[in-house]
Amino acid sequence: MSKTGDLLRTPRGMRDFAPDEKRRRDWVIDRIRRVFERYGYEPIETPSVELFDVLRGKLGEEGEQLLFKILRRGTALDDLRLGKVTSVTVGAFEEVVDSALRFDLTVPFARFVAMHPQLPRPFKRYQIQPVWRAERQQRGRYREFYQCDVDVAGSASMLADAEIVAIVVETLLDLGFKEFVTHVGHRKVIDGLVEAAGGQAHYQDICCAIDKFDKIGPDGVRAELDQRGIPAAIANEVLERVGREGSSAELLAALAVDLAATRHGPQGIAELRELFEIARALGVPDRHLRLDLRLVRGLDYYTGPVYESIVTTPAIGSLTGGGRYDDLLGKFIGQPMPAVGTSIGLERIIEVMKEFSMLPAPTGGTEILVAIFDDATRNEALALAAELRRADLRCEVVLKPPKGLRPQINYACTKGIPLIAVLGPDEISAGQVALRAGAGQQLKVERAAAATEAKRMLAELRGAATV
Amino acid sequence: MSKTGDLLRTPRGMRDFAPDEKRRRDWVIDRIRRVFERYGYEPIETPSVELFDVLRGKLGEEGEQLLFKILRRGTALDDLRLGKVTSVTVGAFEEVVDSALRFDLTVPFARFVAMHPQLPRPFKRYQIQPVWRAERQQRGRYREFYQCDVDVAGSASMLADAEIVAIVVETLLDLGFKEFVTHVGHRKVIDGLVEAAGGQAHYQDICCAIDKFDKIGPDGVRAELDQRGIPAAIANEVLERVGREGSSAELLAALAVDLAATRHGPQGIAELRELFEIARALGVPDRHLRLDLRLVRGLDYYTGPVYESIVTTPAIGSLTGGGRYDDLLGKFIGQPMPAVGTSIGLERIIEVMKEFSMLPAPTGGTEILVAIFDDATRNEALALAAELRRADLRCEVVLKPPKGLRPQINYACTKGIPLIAVLGPDEISAGQVALRAGAGQQLKVERAAAATEAKRMLAELRGAATV
Repeated sequence: MSKTGDLLRTPRGMRDFAPDEKRRRDWVIDRIRRVFERYGYEPIETPSVELFDVLRGKLGEEGEQLLFKILRRGTALDDLRLGKVTSVTVGAFEEVVDSALRFDLTVPFARFVAMHPQLPRPFKRYQIQPVWRAERQQRGRYREFYQCDVDVAGSASMLADAEIVAIVVETLLDLGFKEFVTHVGHRKVIDGLVEAAGGQAHYQDICCAIDKFDKIGPDGVRAELDQRGIPAAIANEVLERVGREGSSAELLAALAVDLAATRHGPQGIAELRELFEIARALGVPDRHLRLDLRLVRGLDYYTGPVYESIVTTPAIGSLTGGGRYDDLLGKFIGQPMPAVGTSIGLERIIEVMKEFSMLPAPTGGTEILVAIFDDATRNEALALAAELRRADLRCEVVLKPPKGLRPQINYACTKGIPLIAVLGPDEISAGQVALRAGAGQQLKVERAAAATEAKRMLAELRGAATV
Repeated sequence: MSKTGDLLRTPRGMRDFAPDEKRRRDWVIDRIRRVFERYGYEPIETPSVELFDVLRGKLGEEGEQLLFKILRRGTALDDLRLGKVTSVTVGAFEEVVDSALRFDLTVPFARFVAMHPQLPRPFKRYQIQPVWRAERQQRGRYREFYQCDVDVAGSASMLADAEIVAIVVETLLDLGFKEFVTHVGHRKVIDGLVEAAGGQAHYQDICCAIDKFDKIGPDGVRAELDQRGIPAAIANEVLERVGREGSSAELLAALAVDLAATRHGPQGIAELRELFEIARALGVPDRHLRLDLRLVRGLDYYTGPVYESIVTTPAIGSLTGGGRYDDLLGKFIGQPMPAVGTSIGLERIIEVMKEFSMLPAPTGGTEILVAIFDDATRNEALALAAELRRADLRCEVVLKPPKGLRPQINYACTKGIPLIAVLGPDEISAGQVALRAGAGQQLKVERAAAATEAKRMLAELRGAATV
C-alpha cells in the first residue's frame, strides 16, 4: 500500500478542473457548439477507446509511441500483478494489447462514417471530446486534452471546404477574437509549384522547408533547401512564387499562368478560386481570410485545401487547423469518400482567453443561501429553500449544524453566493423573509413573494456587475 | 495491415452515439445537471486516467480485473510492437503499468478533495463523466458508461444525507418517473440488529442474506441463513425485525426499544429519524421515501445511511444508489473527512426512458434548409443562409452541387429539417424568399422579413407537434 502523499497526484499531463474552471470550459464549449449547430452540424460521440488496429498506422511508426495502449483483459500480466508469478514472457504484442485511447477525433469519425451507412450523406458532424497523447511534457501541452472537430463526409464540393472555413472564422469571432487570419493553402497547388520548378524528386524536402517560411523567412528557407541538397534553380523558382505578395485573386491569376502545364496545379487553383468566392458569399470578412501558398501542414493525409487560423493580436499563433482529406475514409469504407474538416484546439483557446481576460465570470453557481437561524427554525428554512428551488432558483443551505449567522454569511462570501435569505422567529411569525445582497441592506418581503423578489434583486446585481 | 472489415468495430461493450441518440443523452444529462445546480452543487471534471496506486485496493483483488490498465510509455513492449524483438520478459507489474481508466467517480472525487484543500468546505460537487469497467459482456451492461454523481465532502450532518436523498427523488420526478421509491437503510442499524440477535460472528453472512430479502422473500433468506450455518434463533430474530411492516416512525420506535443496548443501533436510529424529518421539510413526498432495514448495498465503504431508488411501475429496478462513506476520504487526506453522495446510473435511465417513450423528440437539429436553385443563384442562397444564421437560426445548404430542388427536398425530409427556403430568379428580382414547411403550402415573404417569418413558422410547427 502506498502512503497518502503518493496518492495526491494526477497522471502526468492530465488535469483536474475545479468548479470555476469547469464552468469556464463549458461556456467556451457551448459557444463553439452553437456555431456548429447554426451551420447544421450534428453531434456524435465515440468511445474513448478504439481497437489498436483502427489507430495503427495513422500516426506513423514514431507517432505510435504517443498512444496510450490498454492491456488486454486477463493476460499473464494479471498474474504478475497479483504476485502469483514473479515474471512473465510476452511473445507477441497482440497478446497484451488490443486497444488504445484515441489520439484524435478524425480517425474515430472515419470509422464511425463507415459503420453508419444509414445516416444522410453528406454527413455533417461535430464532436467535442477529449483525446490522449503521451507527449513529452512541455508547458501548455497536455496528455489529455479536448478537441472540437467539425467535418463533412461525402462531399467533394468546395461548398464544404468554404463552409468549414466560415465556421472557423465565425467561431473565433463569436469567442471574441478580433485580430486573426485564417490562412488557406492547397496541396495540389504546392504539387504544381514543385512540379513547375522541376523539383518532384525533392517533394518532401521542399514541403518541409516552405512550411517554415513564416517562422524563418525566405533566407532561412533558402538555406534549409540548400542544406537538403535542392539545386538553387529549383529553390529560387519555388521561393519566388511562394514569396509573392498580393490579393488572393492576383496571386491565383499569376499562378494560373505559371502552373498551367502541371498535373495538379490548375485544379488546385480552380478550387481555391471557388473556395474564396463561396466564403465571401457566406459572409466571411476578407480581412480574416488569406491565401497562403506556404501552408503545408504536417499530417500526410491532406489532399486539397488546408487551413490554419493564426491570431495576430495578441500574437499567440495557431488556434485551429484542418483541410480536405479525401483518402482516409476510403481505408475504412473500402471505397473512396471525400471529406473535409477542422479541429479547434480548445485548450489553447481557453488559455489565451484566460490570459487576455476574454472570459466572462463563471455563471451557474448558487444564487441564494437560505441561512439557518437556529435549530427550532431549521425546518422552516429548509421549506423556504424548497420553495425557492421550485421557482427555479439555485439555492442552498449550509450542511453543517449552524452556529449563528456569521459563519453562514462567510460561507456565502467564500462561495460568491450573491443573496442570503434569513427566516428568524420574527420573520416566521410575520409571514416574511429577510433578503440581503452581500453586505448591502436587508429587505423584508412577504414569504409568498420571496422568489420573485429574489429574482428581481439578482437581475439588479447582474445589471450592476456589467456597468 | 488489417482488412477493412476488421476496422469496422468498436471495442467490446463500447458504443458510438449517432446524432439523435447523442442529443437524447444530452437532454437527460442537462435535466440532471440542472437539478444538481438547483441544490447548489458545483461541477468538476477529473482525468479519465488515474495513477494505478490511486485505484488499487478500492475494488478488491477480484475487482482489479475490471480495471482497464494502461501501458507505461516506452517499455520493452514497444520494441515488441515495432518488431525489433520477438519476445520480452517482464519482471514487475509496475514496469509495464502505472495507470488505469477510472472505474467510478467516487475515488477520483476523494483524490480531488484531498488535492484541493482551498475549496470551501463542506464541498458540494457533481460530476457527469464516463467510467470504464472490463465487465463480462451482458445485455445492457457496458464497458464505457456514464455516471452522474453528486456528493458532499466535509459534513457529518444528516442535512447532507437528506439533501442527497431529496436530489435523487427530485431528479427522478424531473425526468418524468412517477412510480418509484427511494429506499433508505442504515449500516449502524444493521449492526445493531445483528448485535441484538447475538449474530456478530456471522455479520457478513447475515448482511449478504438479508440484502436479498426483496428478491427471495423471508423464507429464501431463512434458507440461506441456515445454509450459511447461522443458528436458527439468530436468524429468526433478525428476520422478524427486518420483516416488519409499518411507517418509518413506527418501525424506528420499535427498533429504538429493541436495539437500545447495542453499540451502534441507537445512533443509527437517531440519524434515520433526523434524515426522514429533514427530507420531509425539504419537500420530499412521503410516497417516494421508505425505510428499508434490509438494504445493505455491496460496497464495503458505506458507514451510515444508504439508499437506492427502485422504480415500481414499470418494474425496472434500481436506478440510483448511494450512501454515507466517512472513511474513504481519510485514506487520501490522512485525516478523517465525512462524506455522502449518490450515483445516478445514466445508461439505465436512458434505456428505460427510451423503452417507455419518456424522451422528447431530439432538438437542436437544423431548422431551415436554404435550397440552391441553380449555379447562377447559388451565392444569393449562401448569403441568405448567412443572414438567417445571424438571426440565430440553425440553417444549412446542401454541400453537393445541386441538381434541382427535388434532391434537396428529399435531403431535408431525411434529416427532419422542418423548413425550406427557396430563392429562385423570380424571388431574387422581387426581393422575396419562398418559405415552405415540409409538404405544406409555400409562402412568399420579403427577404428582410425571412428570419422573423421563419421563426414564426417554426413556432407554429412546434405548437402543432405538441397538440
